[in-house]
Amino acid sequence: MSVLGALFLMCALSPLILRADEGMWTFNNFPSQKVEAKYGFGPSQTWLDHVRESSLRIAAGCSASFISPHGLVMTNHHCVLECVQELSSARENLVEKGFSAETEAEERKCPVFELDQLMQIRDVTSEVQQAMAGKTGNAANTALHAKEAELQQSCGSDPSTRCDVVSLYEGGVYNLYQYKRYTDVRLVFAPEMSVAQFGGDPDNFNFPRFDFDIGLVRAYENGHAASSPDYLKWSANGSKDGELVFVSGNPGGTSRQLTTSQLAFERDTVLPSVTPAFAEYRGLLERFVTESPERAREADEELFFIENDYKVEFGREQALVDPEFFGVKIREENELRQKAALDSKLVADKSAWDDIAHVQGERSHLFPQREATLFFRFSELLGYATTLVRAATERSKPNSERLPEYTDQALVRIQQQISAPIPVYKDLEELKLSWMFSCVRRDLGADDPFVRKMLGKESPEQLAQRLVSGTHLDDVKVREDLYKGGQAAIAASSDPLIQFIVSIDPDLRVAHKEYEDRVDAPTRAASERIAKARFAVYGTSVDPDATFTLRLSYGTVKGFPNAQGQFVQPYTTIGGLFDRATGAPPYELPQSWLSAKPALDLTTPMNVSTTNDIIGGNSGSPLINKNAEIVGLIFDGNIFSLGGDYGYDAKQNRAIAVDSRALLEGLGKVYHLNRIVDEIEAARR
Amino acid sequence: MSVLGALFLMCALSPLILRADEGMWTFNNFPSQKVEAKYGFGPSQTWLDHVRESSLRIAAGCSASFISPHGLVMTNHHCVLECVQELSSARENLVEKGFSAETEAEERKCPVFELDQLMQIRDVTSEVQQAMAGKTGNAANTALHAKEAELQQSCGSDPSTRCDVVSLYEGGVYNLYQYKRYTDVRLVFAPEMSVAQFGGDPDNFNFPRFDFDIGLVRAYENGHAASSPDYLKWSANGSKDGELVFVSGNPGGTSRQLTTSQLAFERDTVLPSVTPAFAEYRGLLERFVTESPERAREADEELFFIENDYKVEFGREQALVDPEFFGVKIREENELRQKAALDSKLVADKSAWDDIAHVQGERSHLFPQREATLFFRFSELLGYATTLVRAATERSKPNSERLPEYTDQALVRIQQQISAPIPVYKDLEELKLSWMFSCVRRDLGADDPFVRKMLGKESPEQLAQRLVSGTHLDDVKVREDLYKGGQAAIAASSDPLIQFIVSIDPDLRVAHKEYEDRVDAPTRAASERIAKARFAVYGTSVDPDATFTLRLSYGTVKGFPNAQGQFVQPYTTIGGLFDRATGAPPYELPQSWLSAKPALDLTTPMNVSTTNDIIGGNSGSPLINKNAEIVGLIFDGNIFSLGGDYGYDAKQNRAIAVDSRALLEGLGKVYHLNRIVDEIEAARR
Repeated sequence: MSVLGALFLMCALSPLILRADEGMWTFNNFPSQKVEAKYGFGPSQTWLDHVRESSLRIAAGCSASFISPHGLVMTNHHCVLECVQELSSARENLVEKGFSAETEAEERKCPVFELDQLMQIRDVTSEVQQAMAGKTGNAANTALHAKEAELQQSCGSDPSTRCDVVSLYEGGVYNLYQYKRYTDVRLVFAPEMSVAQFGGDPDNFNFPRFDFDIGLVRAYENGHAASSPDYLKWSANGSKDGELVFVSGNPGGTSRQLTTSQLAFERDTVLPSVTPAFAEYRGLLERFVTESPERAREADEELFFIENDYKVEFGREQALVDPEFFGVKIREENELRQKAALDSKLVADKSAWDDIAHVQGERSHLFPQREATLFFRFSELLGYATTLVRAATERSKPNSERLPEYTDQALVRIQQQISAPIPVYKDLEELKLSWMFSCVRRDLGADDPFVRKMLGKESPEQLAQRLVSGTHLDDVKVREDLYKGGQAAIAASSDPLIQFIVSIDPDLRVAHKEYEDRVDAPTRAASERIAKARFAVYGTSVDPDATFTLRLSYGTVKGFPNAQGQFVQPYTTIGGLFDRATGAPPYELPQSWLSAKPALDLTTPMNVSTTNDIIGGNSGSPLINKNAEIVGLIFDGNIFSLGGDYGYDAKQNRAIAVDSRALLEGLGKVYHLNRIVDEIEAARR
Repeated sequence: MSVLGALFLMCALSPLILRADEGMWTFNNFPSQKVEAKYGFGPSQTWLDHVRESSLRIAAGCSASFISPHGLVMTNHHCVLECVQELSSARENLVEKGFSAETEAEERKCPVFELDQLMQIRDVTSEVQQAMAGKTGNAANTALHAKEAELQQSCGSDPSTRCDVVSLYEGGVYNLYQYKRYTDVRLVFAPEMSVAQFGGDPDNFNFPRFDFDIGLVRAYENGHAASSPDYLKWSANGSKDGELVFVSGNPGGTSRQLTTSQLAFERDTVLPSVTPAFAEYRGLLERFVTESPERAREADEELFFIENDYKVEFGREQALVDPEFFGVKIREENELRQKAALDSKLVADKSAWDDIAHVQGERSHLFPQREATLFFRFSELLGYATTLVRAATERSKPNSERLPEYTDQALVRIQQQISAPIPVYKDLEELKLSWMFSCVRRDLGADDPFVRKMLGKESPEQLAQRLVSGTHLDDVKVREDLYKGGQAAIAASSDPLIQFIVSIDPDLRVAHKEYEDRVDAPTRAASERIAKARFAVYGTSVDPDATFTLRLSYGTVKGFPNAQGQFVQPYTTIGGLFDRATGAPPYELPQSWLSAKPALDLTTPMNVSTTNDIIGGNSGSPLINKNAEIVGLIFDGNIFSLGGDYGYDAKQNRAIAVDSRALLEGLGKVYHLNRIVDEIEAARR
């Protein structure tokens, strides 16, 4: 499921503070007493610390956990898919065929993979807010970036430490998160894509579901399997209907505390523009993969992710156009505004909502250029060129004055990316650039000065062709030399892609800064005041919007009524997987499963639905019981979860996991991964 | 340009009845007195009759006019593009290279082309309404279809007569339109696509514009050029800024009189679903045309139209999500409801708006299946199969009991289509079917019974491949035999596409009927009551929504303020065309224009903007002065015209035409079409 994503729902919400089992709670503010009162069990500090240190974030956009003391890590297949793709070649298609390391020596290093283990959280709200006090626009942004860089730097400077300043409650709280960072991560196991993503796009975000969406990697330190004293044990019996379960993971982002004017901007401007752009890109890729088996191999991963992202964006749009849903958001906002108005200390904050509404006007002018260039992220080559050009400039500045993506700490990851031996497919890159340049022209218009500068007298197709065929940025050595050579090397480069970025980057920087100063800064200032009002009225009994940082959610194993009003049971079975297989993609089982069928217990639970409040980024999160034992592996949400970006609906929103029993049955009887099964079993004792 | 289309705008409307120069007026209710009062000239009945009989409808979705007494017809290049495409082959790409018939003998018959000349309008409101009186649902639909078939039949039965019952004011008025029908239509002239559609998708619906979007055909009768005593003469001097001008043509459809609940359904359900589906199709085609020059030739026309349709749908969505725009629609509706409530005769009609709102609930359940199968229309082969299967069944019934598309009169066109030697590109068809089947599965879900029946155990790609590779419906003889053979031939056919349609057609018919009975019938009944209220309050001083029938609009040559607030002048020049040419598509001029440049008067007006209220379907309409002389050729609207589907904005909505002076300059000095220029000049005298 979604690694970027975000969600929605069809039904009206009960008021904010009454919602059951809602919340993506930070580990330093988990409502243990509330959970205890309802379920007879509340996590202790020891429990929380253990689960926190067993949990991992995959920096590229997923969640994971240690499942043995020897650095073995469980996550989803789709969370290791990029690694599997990068380790594949025209000769060896690991995406299609899967991968198992028979011995530790066979475990293969992922070119770019960062695991973050959250070790400490420190409140830095007053420091950050003081640094920005009295400042607006550009001055506020400069002060914020400098303070963040300073806090990061003071927190740890060796490559195995990562520190992030995390803004919670839209700037109401700032925390400094300190992570242990693993960058030597090796692939242990990935099943065939056809069973990992069984049902493909049609079944994505639907339930009943039958996916074996697991991937295993191992963290290494100094060339050896990392020691991971905190890890999650496997449950002996799995879960049962109604049981209390927790999800520990990193939800990517939610928008539940946005004002209605911000939501309207999403609904009327952002989503109607992004959704068809994704649909067009999907169409281009759908055709590309039919052109040859090799092109299918090159682009199947990209197609998989864009299908997912498209579904997420479409779902978000559907949530916001529902007048009943939007009506709830309006009522909630009015309620908070009225209550805040009664508090004499908050008088100055009454206009914060209007301030944000006012900013949406600015935003509508600046959005097209910002959005257009956001599409640039889809290209590997354009990414390299942008990184190299910007890194050269930024590294010549003091750490505190750089763009946040180029601080000393961030350079660790950048250097890993520059040096990673990732295959670049020039035919696919040309498709991407062609599409992106067309999107930019469409969004800004053929007569826009930036578009004229970007295209010159070429068509999008001609420009893409010239840049891609002429560049050598697909060569690691070329990239490394340009990185080492800094500004002089960039200025001397005759690479057309470097020259292209050198030419347009000043414009991109101006546009970015303008957006930061005229949209981000005033929004943050007003949001802080709303956060203050919210704290005054509701306290911190409300969880902050998700920020791709570690959160804990609680809930129960539970089915749900579907759109036709029928009740869907919470468990599917391995037998159901075989029943659903038609033999045609995406309902085609690999030979491994067909051969193993006689040996399998077909009544084993396959996938399971729970009420946990999760969102994109939670992919790969462990589903655990009150003993902190693994009972499943989160990989998806149902269709009603797609509104979760804006609000949680306890009646129908469900998280979807692979059942721990199916995982063991598959690893053992289909893949005969005895080494790994033994490691899991040994760790359980 | 749009041939399907419909539109939107960004600004608030003044109330309905105060709008200036708005209206797509029927020829039997043109507000001559109002025009006379404002401009000092009002069309007389003679003027109206002459213009009506000079005007033509292209049945496939465009407008045109006679411009000589010998059947010479002027329309847009994009209105003859399908014919040009059908006359092309891998050896001879007429779309790219253009076509000129040096002699009448060289004029080439378009495989399928129907021109309709409106000869008479008769009011049949009471007959139709009496037939349906007291009936609801299925009974009302049956009565309506039977009455329509009866009226058609009584009006004329020879193939050169076409009669349509036209529902105006959403069922408030029924008129019987009698046309003279020409089906032998031959291509005289088409320029190169690159200059006809100069600026391509980026410039489409934008102004300043520089297109030579003209196509010439000739109507034939009994193998000879048709005699056309009513035709439009060329103006000697062209138009000037501020001059009164008229557009006589066939606007395809508007939705200005829909209730706000219907508009909300468009905004929240229809458009967010159609727009990305079109975007995906566009992406597929964009890639397809890169695969080989021959594939580019096969699909460039299809890509051109889907780019246009996408832009129109996107524009409609943008109009409806604008809260200010939607607010005006709400206020207008409330005003009418309040005024109607004061009229004691209308008491029973007060609930009509609520009835329509109620129907939207039904509609939301039935819409997905209806929409899904609407995509089927994109495939030639699927069209043939559906027509053959249905025609076999329908022809066995009495005329009055058939589906309206299969009455005796409609069979004339069906037979022409079946027998037309149109090339079918199987690789393109496979792409289309694959996309359509995926759309259907996406809209209805993988577990929907219809989807399961449609796909069986195949994937959309597999099914498309099997049907397309196995069918022989690309062979005229096969189609003709199946048509002649009727039900027995269909039952005996082993053609996979025929068998496929035989299998799913019963389901499609049920879905269609359900939609007609549960959505169309109650909507029509309530709309009639609203129309009655509207007549009572406003009289017929309001024009009916467009229905792809002949309308006359009046306005003036006029520029407009663009989105940046700058005033755009109403004329561009031929010199501007050369200035805008970069040499890269879509800004690449053909050699004919580059060579002719020294001979051209570069100050000649190229394109012109006017305030005429038009919409998709008006493409190819003549722009005429008060002497009924041609001063331009409508081919597009500006970006603000894209909201015109829902309301007319006098401040910014503009129609765009090729200036008559540029037409003559180009025909003479670029294409040396002396034969035709002489015919035009002779006709002028």
